[in-house]
Amino acid sequence: MSTTTDSRRRILVLHGPNLNLTGRREPDIYGTTTLAEIDTALRAIGTANGADLTIVQSNHEGALIDAMHTAMDGGLDGILINAGGLSHTSVALRDAVAAAGVPAVEVHLSNVAVREEFRRVSVLGAVCVGGVYGFGAESYRLGLLALLHTLEANATR
Amino acid sequence: MSTTTDSRRRILVLHGPNLNLTGRREPDIYGTTTLAEIDTALRAIGTANGADLTIVQSNHEGALIDAMHTAMDGGLDGILINAGGLSHTSVALRDAVAAAGVPAVEVHLSNVAVREEFRRVSVLGAVCVGGVYGFGAESYRLGLLALLHTLEANATR
Amino acid sequence: MSTTTDSRRRILVLHGPNLNLTGRREPDIYGTTTLAEIDTALRAIGTANGADLTIVQSNHEGALIDAMHTAMDGGLDGILINAGGLSHTSVALRDAVAAAGVPAVEVHLSNVAVREEFRRVSVLGAVCVGGVYGFGAESYRLGLLALLHTLEANATR
Amino acid sequence: MSTTTDSRRRILVLHGPNLNLTGRREPDIYGTTTLAEIDTALRAIGTANGADLTIVQSNHEGALIDAMHTAMDGGLDGILINAGGLSHTSVALRDAVAAAGVPAVEVHLSNVAVREEFRRVSVLGAVCVGGVYGFGAESYRLGLLALLHTLEANATR
Amino acid sequence: MSTTTDSRRRILVLHGPNLNLTGRREPDIYGTTTLAEIDTALRAIGTANGADLTIVQSNHEGALIDAMHTAMDGGLDGILINAGGLSHTSVALRDAVAAAGVPAVEVHLSNVAVREEFRRVSVLGAVCVGGVYGFGAESYRLGLLALLHTLEANATR
Amino acid sequence: MSTTTDSRRRILVLHGPNLNLTGRREPDIYGTTTLAEIDTALRAIGTANGADLTIVQSNHEGALIDAMHTAMDGGLDGILINAGGLSHTSVALRDAVAAAGVPAVEVHLSNVAVREEFRRVSVLGAVCVGGVYGFGAESYRLGLLALLHTLEANATR
Amino acid sequence: MSTTTDSRRRILVLHGPNLNLTGRREPDIYGTTTLAEIDTALRAIGTANGADLTIVQSNHEGALIDAMHTAMDGGLDGILINAGGLSHTSVALRDAVAAAGVPAVEVHLSNVAVREEFRRVSVLGAVCVGGVYGFGAESYRLGLLALLHTLEANATR
Amino acid sequence: MSTTTDSRRRILVLHGPNLNLTGRREPDIYGTTTLAEIDTALRAIGTANGADLTIVQSNHEGALIDAMHTAMDGGLDGILINAGGLSHTSVALRDAVAAAGVPAVEVHLSNVAVREEFRRVSVLGAVCVGGVYGFGAESYRLGLLALLHTLEANATR
Amino acid sequence: MSTTTDSRRRILVLHGPNLNLTGRREPDIYGTTTLAEIDTALRAIGTANGADLTIVQSNHEGALIDAMHTAMDGGLDGILINAGGLSHTSVALRDAVAAAGVPAVEVHLSNVAVREEFRRVSVLGAVCVGGVYGFGAESYRLGLLALLHTLEANATR
Amino acid sequence: MSTTTDSRRRILVLHGPNLNLTGRREPDIYGTTTLAEIDTALRAIGTANGADLTIVQSNHEGALIDAMHTAMDGGLDGILINAGGLSHTSVALRDAVAAAGVPAVEVHLSNVAVREEFRRVSVLGAVCVGGVYGFGAESYRLGLLALLHTLEANATR
Amino acid sequence: MSTTTDSRRRILVLHGPNLNLTGRREPDIYGTTTLAEIDTALRAIGTANGADLTIVQSNHEGALIDAMHTAMDGGLDGILINAGGLSHTSVALRDAVAAAGVPAVEVHLSNVAVREEFRRVSVLGAVCVGGVYGFGAESYRLGLLALLHTLEANATR
Amino acid sequence: MSTTTDSRRRILVLHGPNLNLTGRREPDIYGTTTLAEIDTALRAIGTANGADLTIVQSNHEGALIDAMHTAMDGGLDGILINAGGLSHTSVALRDAVAAAGVPAVEVHLSNVAVREEFRRVSVLGAVCVGGVYGFGAESYRLGLLALLHTLEANATR
Repeated sequence: MSTTTDSRRRILVLHGPNLNLTGRREPDIYGTTTLAEIDTALRAIGTANGADLTIVQSNHEGALIDAMHTAMDGGLDGILINAGGLSHTSVALRDAVAAAGVPAVEVHLSNVAVREEFRRVSVLGAVCVGGVYGFGAESYRLGLLALLHTLEANATR
Repeated sequence: MSTTTDSRRRILVLHGPNLNLTGRREPDIYGTTTLAEIDTALRAIGTANGADLTIVQSNHEGALIDAMHTAMDGGLDGILINAGGLSHTSVALRDAVAAAGVPAVEVHLSNVAVREEFRRVSVLGAVCVGGVYGFGAESYRLGLLALLHTLEANATR
Repeated sequence: MSTTTDSRRRILVLHGPNLNLTGRREPDIYGTTTLAEIDTALRAIGTANGADLTIVQSNHEGALIDAMHTAMDGGLDGILINAGGLSHTSVALRDAVAAAGVPAVEVHLSNVAVREEFRRVSVLGAVCVGGVYGFGAESYRLGLLALLHTLEANATR
Repeated sequence: MSTTTDSRRRILVLHGPNLNLTGRREPDIYGTTTLAEIDTALRAIGTANGADLTIVQSNHEGALIDAMHTAMDGGLDGILINAGGLSHTSVALRDAVAAAGVPAVEVHLSNVAVREEFRRVSVLGAVCVGGVYGFGAESYRLGLLALLHTLEANATR
Repeated sequence: MSTTTDSRRRILVLHGPNLNLTGRREPDIYGTTTLAEIDTALRAIGTANGADLTIVQSNHEGALIDAMHTAMDGGLDGILINAGGLSHTSVALRDAVAAAGVPAVEVHLSNVAVREEFRRVSVLGAVCVGGVYGFGAESYRLGLLALLHTLEANATR
Repeated sequence: MSTTTDSRRRILVLHGPNLNLTGRREPDIYGTTTLAEIDTALRAIGTANGADLTIVQSNHEGALIDAMHTAMDGGLDGILINAGGLSHTSVALRDAVAAAGVPAVEVHLSNVAVREEFRRVSVLGAVCVGGVYGFGAESYRLGLLALLHTLEANATR
Repeated sequence: MSTTTDSRRRILVLHGPNLNLTGRREPDIYGTTTLAEIDTALRAIGTANGADLTIVQSNHEGALIDAMHTAMDGGLDGILINAGGLSHTSVALRDAVAAAGVPAVEVHLSNVAVREEFRRVSVLGAVCVGGVYGFGAESYRLGLLALLHTLEANATR
Repeated sequence: MSTTTDSRRRILVLHGPNLNLTGRREPDIYGTTTLAEIDTALRAIGTANGADLTIVQSNHEGALIDAMHTAMDGGLDGILINAGGLSHTSVALRDAVAAAGVPAVEVHLSNVAVREEFRRVSVLGAVCVGGVYGFGAESYRLGLLALLHTLEANATR
Repeated sequence: MSTTTDSRRRILVLHGPNLNLTGRREPDIYGTTTLAEIDTALRAIGTANGADLTIVQSNHEGALIDAMHTAMDGGLDGILINAGGLSHTSVALRDAVAAAGVPAVEVHLSNVAVREEFRRVSVLGAVCVGGVYGFGAESYRLGLLALLHTLEANATR
Repeated sequence: MSTTTDSRRRILVLHGPNLNLTGRREPDIYGTTTLAEIDTALRAIGTANGADLTIVQSNHEGALIDAMHTAMDGGLDGILINAGGLSHTSVALRDAVAAAGVPAVEVHLSNVAVREEFRRVSVLGAVCVGGVYGFGAESYRLGLLALLHTLEANATR
Repeated sequence: MSTTTDSRRRILVLHGPNLNLTGRREPDIYGTTTLAEIDTALRAIGTANGADLTIVQSNHEGALIDAMHTAMDGGLDGILINAGGLSHTSVALRDAVAAAGVPAVEVHLSNVAVREEFRRVSVLGAVCVGGVYGFGAESYRLGLLALLHTLEANATR
Repeated sequence: MSTTTDSRRRILVLHGPNLNLTGRREPDIYGTTTLAEIDTALRAIGTANGADLTIVQSNHEGALIDAMHTAMDGGLDGILINAGGLSHTSVALRDAVAAAGVPAVEVHLSNVAVREEFRRVSVLGAVCVGGVYGFGAESYRLGLLALLHTLEANATR
């Protein structure tokens, strides 16, 4: 699905429902860094590592899936995804990640292991290569580094 | 999230998937009053109690979440929500209600306790102050009264 | 079971175990309004709506069942019930409500959805027409209005 | 607990909550024979078989337990019990039957296997020698015959 | 399926796997009366009550189903069944009983409630009118009486 | 909901999330026939059987529900639906199918019984008349034939 | 297991317990078409598609397994199976289908998704290529077409 | 709820259903010491430690709750409770203990961990400070010492 | 049930459904040794150890039970059983083994612990003295040695 | 295992993982008394009651088991054990307690009933005679008294 | 991990917690043969079959894992393991067996199928080739024979 | 527990059972980087960030707990832990992490979400601030960065 020989990595960053509120809602759980600040930090990492980032936030499951399909058509090397509340319920999103056929990394702002029971199940987990959770905005930065590292490792195999 | 000192209450009324069919579909379960009639009755209660109602119906989970975010930006004092089938599955909607940070009341037209097993679980319940179910269109009217009563009680605390 | 043509509604209000302490025990959960105040408010609604209320509080499951049987013998049009801790365990109480053969409405002072897991199961729910929970003493008032509305709707069918 | 050499069997018949309504409530489930008629039929069988019956109906779990304790003090050979809704929940009643130390037979008017899931569990079952269910008033008659047969079989062992 | 006007009842008695050993195997659980003795007792009850009994024992699930089909073709008024170990597992047998369309009574020699967990589930229970268990050979006799009583009651309705 | 006497059947075909990728994603699971090819084949069957097909694919749950509501307004005789990942989670979609009040047939490209545990549960199944799964694009063709057969059978009843 | 180069397909059609009653028992669930009529229709499809059908009905699990073993010895290309009540319980039948090593298609007359909980589990499903359910006798016809289509597709791979 | 400055501790000792039989029923499980002997031993400990004991035994759940309410009105410092069979089922009793708002200690005569599965769940446990089980009458004595120790520790905090 | 003083051990070897295919079906799971070869090896062990073997293979649960009953009548010292797919479901077979009243040893060709979840449950296990699994045909040989060892040990006790 | 006639009781006191931190870690859960202080108190009770105490603390499951084996060799009359986190998981420790063959008493500093779900299961419970929990260091003192009382009672039986 | 061409098999025999007590503890469950006697028997089999045995018993999970690592470094062809209570809980031990990369055989002295529920789950089972249980010391001897047989079979493949 | 004002962070790195084999065992799951290489990389990060690392690997649960206690005594600022198979079972390890009272980060080499069911449960998760999994040796590096970031963030709060 991503056989381009272009030297730059094309990464799709997906923010799911309510993540547009990051930094504003329940700061004791989600921290005070805004989504715009997170995106800026991610783009800086992308620039430093030769990766082009497409960043999409939507509260619509379907829009997140559409974004993946669009990215697949344009060439896609990896996915960084925080699906928010959809992480625990959306089989459709999981199918889209699997269909994309590129490495995906799942991130969470909070430590899902200390929250409600239903947040401990990740429907997405099994179609990702790995994940980072619990470090607020830092989860995203580390997750992107992990994704880039994975792509690098795959390339040199 | 709603610190306005404006004397009028700003209430968001949310109708989830298929509720646009109310009064038309399966009348033995959902009654014969239409959604327009319900909305008219709710607006009358609002007018009588100094509350401004914004009413949104959508079959899209994302659109319901968007509506909450928009209302939060414009000032929001309370939410009256019948999420329909999403009540039992949508963690994203629950997160949005929690993020709104204002009292929410959940209503259902039918008595969910006598229907399918999966309708007895409300994902929304834990982020609402209370609920009313089983009385058809009357559930909405009583739910709005309960919400207004809650806001009043909070204001005088 | 209640075929009287008497124009006044006969309503049985049942308060289960520990509800005699309402307003005194754990006020952060149950509020500060006493049961006597709740009963006064309910009687006022009854008077205003042409309904006669018989109100019984007991910590004995059997006494609540006896009260229903007695009321059935005297003519009974509807039941408003807060069974307290018995709501989640008593099949015998459920059978008594079912046997009464009149509309019943279940109310709870607190939002059972945010409390212990076992409080989310209502054994009574399936034999009631609907319910109101989470609004403290207001739950009772709204529940009685819902019951009267149900009786009215049934009468005009 | 019952070492009397008196030639007549002393049987305690217990009817649990709501069984006083038998023949009046939900006749399509429970039949039209009244409890008084059932008791008369049971006493006739007792007379014909040299057994003295003490019959107690109560909606109070504690009263049923008290009745067993009283009977134990006076001499008791067997128990015929239809605990109604308590059959599925009351560990205390089960303990009382176990403490009585005499054969007990459980009966049910309706076929519990075709009703709600929770009626398929009998807390009492494991402390009884057997049971009869599904035949309306006839369940009682057959249950008493089964109890007398069990006492006879034990006596001749 | 049994619309004959013949005045005699036609009853099919089915004994499932291992019941041919009754009286020989594990007598502390199943008693010492043999199956032949049970059959003799059942035929005596049949004769006394104007009922013709066809009695089949088989260790083959399919043979028990065949026997029901054959009986249906010849005219059948009721079924008395102890399916032994198949009681807890055989959906095919359940379907056959349901297909027969006549009252069926389930019996068990032992008190299944005090044995292994899997014996507490009866797949057959929901397609029978009732059951008798725990009284050894007496369970059969009482079960047949219950079946005859049910047929009588149906006839006079 | 579909009382038209028009001689042509009006069928709504719904393809859920990710089905636009059919023939492109994971061909060992989903086959190599594209969705356009499937649609062409379905329209051919429709033409041959006097049925008009409206075909909608969307990755948005809400859009699928909207499509059903629109079709209901225009006259609708049957639904052929492959809801993809939503099949296993969407109560809202189920409610929409139930509300449509016309026969619906569920199809799946793959054999869900050999895949992940959560794919074995179909929330839609109980509101459909039947289903076809496991035969790739052929599932759709057979599913449409089954739907047309069902409509025919209902018409001649 | 089926490497014959014979141009005709050899298909084994298996009908499990109680299916001999099809058209006679519970017609509102299973329809009024008899098994003989179904078999005639299947043979017609076979003739039209160059397939030889061996059809076996038995109420004996073992006989169904024997039939598969016999067919394997004679050359077997595919299996069409409605195992009736055994579908949900028989691991032995599942093992036989797996051992046959040819494509199998599972069919059901009724929509198992709207019936008892235990009918929603198919032990056979995971060893079949797919299934058709809910369309009465039509399920068989479509199932055979699906099987022939599968064999055709495999042959041309 | 117990802010008295009186120097003597006021302790309510509650014995639930069937405990009046202690020393008489099933002595291999419950020992041979009678309840009267236990009460005497407890009063001796009370006297030695400056505590006044009110002791109530009842087979009625409601009477145990009433006893707690009465004691609360008269001033109450702690509860020692063996609720017998109600320990595992009574939410109402649990609510009463919670409402009392004083330290409670749960005791059991037998080792519940080696008995039936349902005895391993204590509904009361979460509203008590701790418990003692398995030592027969000694459980009560140790439990009272533990309660007095807890009150002492709280007083000196 | 086996009190003969004959010096030779009488062993019944039972092979359940599909085991007649051993060596032919799915050799990567079950190996390539045929059942005939296994039987020859078992008879050789029998001869060397003074044991007479009766060997029965059937795809019919009932035939396996019949074989046990027949063997019991002729004198039986032990059972070696591989019930195939019935191992995980057949209560009737379990009851037959228990009724036989002689030591039984359960064997499996494959390692059931690495296969489907439902193969990890053995209904037979609790009525056998032990088992051997995972070693293909060798499981049988070791199982027979274990059975002979058990009989020897019992004899010298 | 402990048949010595020596007049002094030999008691093994076992403290499991992390209990060396008692008094230092999370004092709001575990209290401020140190393990050394607890040991001193236990030895004082031992001295006063003619018992010799061997006290072992280890974070190693194996070391706790070794300690029991060593004590068994030297003569052992009873075990007082707080296995800490191993209480809920260690079958090996349970087996060691069972193998010791002397009365054991389980203690816990905190009230496990109000903590995480997994702490409510005690793997050790079923091999102990009883337990004390929730009273901090006092749990140990009462537990030792209970153990000595049990040994005394056994001696005089 | 074991590619040596050395003609002698190197086998690691592991005895888990409490197995040092074999022959001493609970002889009705575990038999009277001591571990030393078992080891002697195993060495004899080894000698007779050209295998060198390293035998380790430890009550420490870590020591058992260490032993496997050490053996891997020295060359290892197979593992015979009775992990005792760790069999049902230790993922770490399972990982060590899997890491060893050589055939492993699991043995148990007792028939785990007739003991506590938690003993029916073997965490080790899925990483072993097979197992033998229920025959006391004989389980070990047969298990070693099975392991040697497996190594032989693998060598000749 | 870590109130030192020393400017350097003191980090304890814990490697649980079998991690000493990293790079050697099952490389397709765990990668080819050895533990020594991982430790070198971690120390380099430590040096670059002013942190002192103490690194401990052990196959003994108790040794890992001991290491934490020792580190606590010497001053400890954070824990980086890969507990291997103990992650999913060890309550004792969890208690030790909680007792340490400093931020802990959990890492895993592999993506636990795609492995066995029991690996999806982390007993440690709820006492850590977050985690990183699925990236092989990179998980450790990112985990240490996350831990240092967390300590930095806490310091500046």
